[in-house]
Amino acid sequence: MFEEKTFQPDWTEKAPEKGSYRSIFKWGSPDEFKHPNSAWYAMLKEEFKMTDKDFKKPTLEGNEKVVIKKKIKLTKKKISQFIDIVGEKNVATDDYSRVKYSHGKTVDEAMDLRNHVVRDVPDIVVHPRNKKDVQKIVEYCNTQKIPIYVFGGGSSVTFGLNTPKAGVMLVMSTHMNKLLSINELNQTATVQPGMFGPAYEKALNNPPKKFKVKGQYTCGHFPQSFEYSTVGGWVVTLGAGQASTYYGDAYDIVFAQEYVTPAGTFRTLEYPATATGPKVNDIMKGSEGSFGILVEVTMKIFRNMPQNRQRFAFMFPTWEKAVNASREIIQGEFGKPAVFRISDPEETEVGLKLFGLQGTPIDSLINLRGYKPMKRCMCMGWAEGEKGFAKHVKEQVARLCKKYGAMTMTGFTAMLWEKTRYKEPYMREDLMDYGVIIDTVESGVTWANLHRLHQGVRSYIKNRPETICMTHASHFYPQGTNLYFIFILKMIDLEAYRQFHDGILDAILKHGGSISHHHGVGKLFAPLMEKHLGKEQMAVLRTLKKHFDPNSIMNPGGHLGLDL
Amino acid sequence: MFEEKTFQPDWTEKAPEKGSYRSIFKWGSPDEFKHPNSAWYAMLKEEFKMTDKDFKKPTLEGNEKVVIKKKIKLTKKKISQFIDIVGEKNVATDDYSRVKYSHGKTVDEAMDLRNHVVRDVPDIVVHPRNKKDVQKIVEYCNTQKIPIYVFGGGSSVTFGLNTPKAGVMLVMSTHMNKLLSINELNQTATVQPGMFGPAYEKALNNPPKKFKVKGQYTCGHFPQSFEYSTVGGWVVTLGAGQASTYYGDAYDIVFAQEYVTPAGTFRTLEYPATATGPKVNDIMKGSEGSFGILVEVTMKIFRNMPQNRQRFAFMFPTWEKAVNASREIIQGEFGKPAVFRISDPEETEVGLKLFGLQGTPIDSLINLRGYKPMKRCMCMGWAEGEKGFAKHVKEQVARLCKKYGAMTMTGFTAMLWEKTRYKEPYMREDLMDYGVIIDTVESGVTWANLHRLHQGVRSYIKNRPETICMTHASHFYPQGTNLYFIFILKMIDLEAYRQFHDGILDAILKHGGSISHHHGVGKLFAPLMEKHLGKEQMAVLRTLKKHFDPNSIMNPGGHLGLDL
Repeated sequence: MFEEKTFQPDWTEKAPEKGSYRSIFKWGSPDEFKHPNSAWYAMLKEEFKMTDKDFKKPTLEGNEKVVIKKKIKLTKKKISQFIDIVGEKNVATDDYSRVKYSHGKTVDEAMDLRNHVVRDVPDIVVHPRNKKDVQKIVEYCNTQKIPIYVFGGGSSVTFGLNTPKAGVMLVMSTHMNKLLSINELNQTATVQPGMFGPAYEKALNNPPKKFKVKGQYTCGHFPQSFEYSTVGGWVVTLGAGQASTYYGDAYDIVFAQEYVTPAGTFRTLEYPATATGPKVNDIMKGSEGSFGILVEVTMKIFRNMPQNRQRFAFMFPTWEKAVNASREIIQGEFGKPAVFRISDPEETEVGLKLFGLQGTPIDSLINLRGYKPMKRCMCMGWAEGEKGFAKHVKEQVARLCKKYGAMTMTGFTAMLWEKTRYKEPYMREDLMDYGVIIDTVESGVTWANLHRLHQGVRSYIKNRPETICMTHASHFYPQGTNLYFIFILKMIDLEAYRQFHDGILDAILKHGGSISHHHGVGKLFAPLMEKHLGKEQMAVLRTLKKHFDPNSIMNPGGHLGLDL
Repeated sequence: MFEEKTFQPDWTEKAPEKGSYRSIFKWGSPDEFKHPNSAWYAMLKEEFKMTDKDFKKPTLEGNEKVVIKKKIKLTKKKISQFIDIVGEKNVATDDYSRVKYSHGKTVDEAMDLRNHVVRDVPDIVVHPRNKKDVQKIVEYCNTQKIPIYVFGGGSSVTFGLNTPKAGVMLVMSTHMNKLLSINELNQTATVQPGMFGPAYEKALNNPPKKFKVKGQYTCGHFPQSFEYSTVGGWVVTLGAGQASTYYGDAYDIVFAQEYVTPAGTFRTLEYPATATGPKVNDIMKGSEGSFGILVEVTMKIFRNMPQNRQRFAFMFPTWEKAVNASREIIQGEFGKPAVFRISDPEETEVGLKLFGLQGTPIDSLINLRGYKPMKRCMCMGWAEGEKGFAKHVKEQVARLCKKYGAMTMTGFTAMLWEKTRYKEPYMREDLMDYGVIIDTVESGVTWANLHRLHQGVRSYIKNRPETICMTHASHFYPQGTNLYFIFILKMIDLEAYRQFHDGILDAILKHGGSISHHHGVGKLFAPLMEKHLGKEQMAVLRTLKKHFDPNSIMNPGGHLGLDL
């Protein structure tokens, strides 16, 4: 069907107007786009009973200039204090800054901004130049009880940047975005929190001469938001990168941290391991700005050997077999692949469409060999590290995939995915221009509970008519994995969407998933925290909150569920 | 010299008398012994200017029956409350129990007990049968403000069992020592905290039928105290096993924990990873009974494939080359060896004596090939896991060792070490019977700081005349390792020894080592905690203490430095 030369929507290829709502909610670079291909377009029409006519005219594009009527409650005198600290050009009070730096990439925020709805904004936006600035700001805000919020890269999908109590938004990525040092003996890099992924990785791959470094390194952390998220953001929200199965999650690759908190500034010690009681270094990870502000972080780095990458892809006859093979692989004690992903039957079909494989001779071949649509499951990934290691891991992965009835799809498929792995989020705007939402939730789960969670959440989502639900697992541990649910539906009413979304979170909790695997908590999941962790464990987090932030100025208004 | 048939001391081969002081301070099984061999005996005489005459008669053997004059301050009425909870036979008030269960294996404690000096004891010793008992005890003690201490296996070398505030000692290993379940899908085992290492490992190697488990597993955690320490002890003191380089430290292999605290009982959730804020599961690890009592723990377990073990041993020309090779190995991204150890020049010489290799043709050969005494450094270990993986790791280790000028000593040396690896502590009693102390401290350190710490601590120790100081690194991480200092000296005055020991700890702090890598903190290192961590981080630990234990009844009197 998609081969016919029929109507195709005129997907926008225009950078959003400067100062417009769209320039805030659009994913990534203003000039980059990724559009649904014709197979996807056909799928959208079919699934949502839409016609070409529905794609004639985009709606609520948000091309208008941001104008808000939100009074700045902070007095001029107080604002001048911030100007004294960081200089005039690093304090913004204009509408656009206030909106831009308090909005992340949640579907709700995009829907709101398309409708020119702005719920909360900070009074002022401040761009600190260094940790001294941050220290002065925190001290001043603490004495004056002025709320402080923090913006890194702005990629939060959990209302991580909302500012219900107004106050001050600190933008870490404007100035505090440098690599400070590389310690080649320790294999660590010390970096300012506002450094973006690509700049960080580039500096590690080919260290600037001033660092006097001989080797080439990699950060090992490649979340889908890599291009538009910061190192500090990874750490304080507990991100997980696409190669986490080998390199570990953000939690694992933090070596030492320096925080400015109302209770003081401190830097955790640099030790590979100690037995000196509970580790404050770990207590701070995932604190999402609620305890203090990360001003410097020393990360573990790894030798970069991309030339040794060993790609693979397989098609499994069923989801169960894909899961069983994955478990054997990750528990096999032969080293772990860096990237490893399995897609459930629905994601496999949608993925074949996305890769343009559906209906091709390859598709027919797979079919002929007995891998049937809506049963078969795609698996792909790669091993890396030292040459012989990567080769051996790939061989063992292949052996176990074959044991569970998989056929090889060649490393080419993994290469296709690799090329576009940061681009998928760009399609969100195209879809929403025509009233279609694409959104995701993800959850950590043990192997023993995987199928229950998958079925429970999927059946809730699929219970809604005309709803696409794709699931994959992409971060593997000997004890379990994550489930990443992507759902697509036609909907323009935010209230109705929020209700549907709440139902998904309920289904996750009900079926024993964690409320977040790597998107953090923010204010989106905050109301579920106590139910999820239990009151005793929430009490521990609240005690820590009170210790670091007795005046409740750090990211106040429900973040992490600490001050609900 | 040691080949001559000269006088050899009559090392004791008699199990200590029941009820005697010696039965408390003697390491391990009453009936097991390991004596210095003739080479070691010769070394002791030479180093400490001793003669055969000094080894004619052991002194202060502590064979006398334990008698103390310590009033029980707990009223009969209160004691009867404990009897009501656990039953009469699980409450002990006799002298022997009170001393035995409040003493660990610190040199100081052994010296004291040899002199019939008993500083602190609990009023009563209670053997809880299950977690309900523990809950009732903690609740009662909290209302009555009765101090609670906890005894696991009793192998603490940091005054971990001292009871400065008297009160109640809970012995976890009497009843709460069972494996509860194995989850084969998740590769986890749920175990009571008082289970000893060998029983735990045996049950994992060959799971009892009732668990309906097909595979064979290993705990992966083999500290030198393995035979006389408990799973709970590993977790709450942050132990590290001899195979930690591959399997991780205790911190890494804990999956979920259940604690009874004055602030409530809770169990941390079972997820392979989450992004739901700071992790209470991690906050509790290493809390050493100061926050609450670990009553159940779910540990990660691993596939057991001892048949794949690939042993190796190498001799390096210098310490620097041994260190550089180790760093390249651990940062090489080809998988990690399970056991990996390098000994500094002095330990290498003493080790060659211990293995009976000094003066043999092997020794001559090594010498001839240019590996000179007091320069050369021994390295040994093994890789394990899946067969091809273990083989590849060993090959890479060998390649890098050769790159740094090492000669192979064959896997036989590693096998020798493996056989006796839990036995060395038995020599302590033999030595102390003749006024010679053998003791250890250990510290975590980054690669960049390794030589500074090694030289700094070593030069302090060697500055004392007639003092042997051996150092090895035995737990490897990409960012650093540990340094384990073993020192032997002739000394019988406890005060003088304490002063000398304090100087070692100062030297560690001064040269940037952590005050503990895997022995925990206890009350021995407690006074150094604030200096080490800084006041801001100590304040976090104290806040947690106050939260869990507002009446300061959990392990009170300086533990972890929380209530100093």
